[in-house]
Amino acid sequence: MIVEFSILPVGKGVSLSEHVAKALDIVDQSGLRYQFTPMGTILEGGYDEIMSTIKKCHDAILEDCERVVTTIKMDDRKGSEDAIKRKVESVERRLGKDLQK
Amino acid sequence: MIVEFSILPVGKGVSLSEHVAKALDIVDQSGLRYQFTPMGTILEGGYDEIMSTIKKCHDAILEDCERVVTTIKMDDRKGSEDAIKRKVESVERRLGKDLQK
Amino acid sequence: MIVEFSILPVGKGVSLSEHVAKALDIVDQSGLRYQFTPMGTILEGGYDEIMSTIKKCHDAILEDCERVVTTIKMDDRKGSEDAIKRKVESVERRLGKDLQK
Amino acid sequence: MIVEFSILPVGKGVSLSEHVAKALDIVDQSGLRYQFTPMGTILEGGYDEIMSTIKKCHDAILEDCERVVTTIKMDDRKGSEDAIKRKVESVERRLGKDLQK
Repeated sequence: MIVEFSILPVGKGVSLSEHVAKALDIVDQSGLRYQFTPMGTILEGGYDEIMSTIKKCHDAILEDCERVVTTIKMDDRKGSEDAIKRKVESVERRLGKDLQK
Repeated sequence: MIVEFSILPVGKGVSLSEHVAKALDIVDQSGLRYQFTPMGTILEGGYDEIMSTIKKCHDAILEDCERVVTTIKMDDRKGSEDAIKRKVESVERRLGKDLQK
Repeated sequence: MIVEFSILPVGKGVSLSEHVAKALDIVDQSGLRYQFTPMGTILEGGYDEIMSTIKKCHDAILEDCERVVTTIKMDDRKGSEDAIKRKVESVERRLGKDLQK
Repeated sequence: MIVEFSILPVGKGVSLSEHVAKALDIVDQSGLRYQFTPMGTILEGGYDEIMSTIKKCHDAILEDCERVVTTIKMDDRKGSEDAIKRKVESVERRLGKDLQK
């Protein structure tokens, strides 16, 4: 299962990197394979370990804020493994060229 | 806490109402306050009961499909209650008019 | 075409109804069929009129803020009309019961 | 402005890389700075050039399908430039370590 999430603290100023760093530290220590992008974080693993990691991040940011908006998008495909790497490669193979990634 | 979610079965034809109905039956029997819209379902309640209801819906649809894309958006504001009703009313009050809802 | 969107001002305090009201006034005067929900606004119409209405809302809120996060989800199905009403009814018909909406 | 989008063809089978490749070829030829991820594509540039590129992708995929669900998330911050690179670096600097990206 592959999941993208992002957490947006509401009412805490315009620069959010302090809060994002707090969440990414949790992700980095989770042991899950992940990819950090400018618009969110992509996790790969089982449902329970992914969702408990996201909840830890959500709760950690809510400690510092009155309000948090968290978005989660799951792509759950039976029998799919190594999806973070495989999904990008399969599109590049079709196009016969490297993409910016 | 107020959460919107939608579940999209991939590769199961263009009309999805059969799958959506299966999920909505689970939501309707959960006892949670909810609002069903043309683009998703809004739930109100605690984190655990909301997330376990969404997981039940996700798993029920995955029984019939090879692949499911589920999107979840949480709006978590400390001390907020009755948010499904209150959020809409507070905007209508500011505008001094009724909106289509 | 049916589109849900929401606009989140970043760094403008915890209560956002003032900004949401500004956007909803634009939507209400657009002439488009719409539905205002606690988590976003659903519009029905053609691509160009929908996207220009959303851009007006985005720009109006950006006048008051340094940073805005806008989410748009389009469901574009060929030959589909009256989708705001029809999508909900078709699920209710399958279930043989009324849902909270 | 930095925008993430993804386009999901509905009812066209479980493997979507053929459709994704069609869209990425359009993005790659647009001249916009972009980042292709396992969950979507991130674009950086002005509103009009970004939105016209996304519309071209949406229309190209709709040529082959009856129904398409397209999600767009814009992060619009005044005076922000080089955001694809800068947003990730600023979190890494805070944490004092490299992240998986």
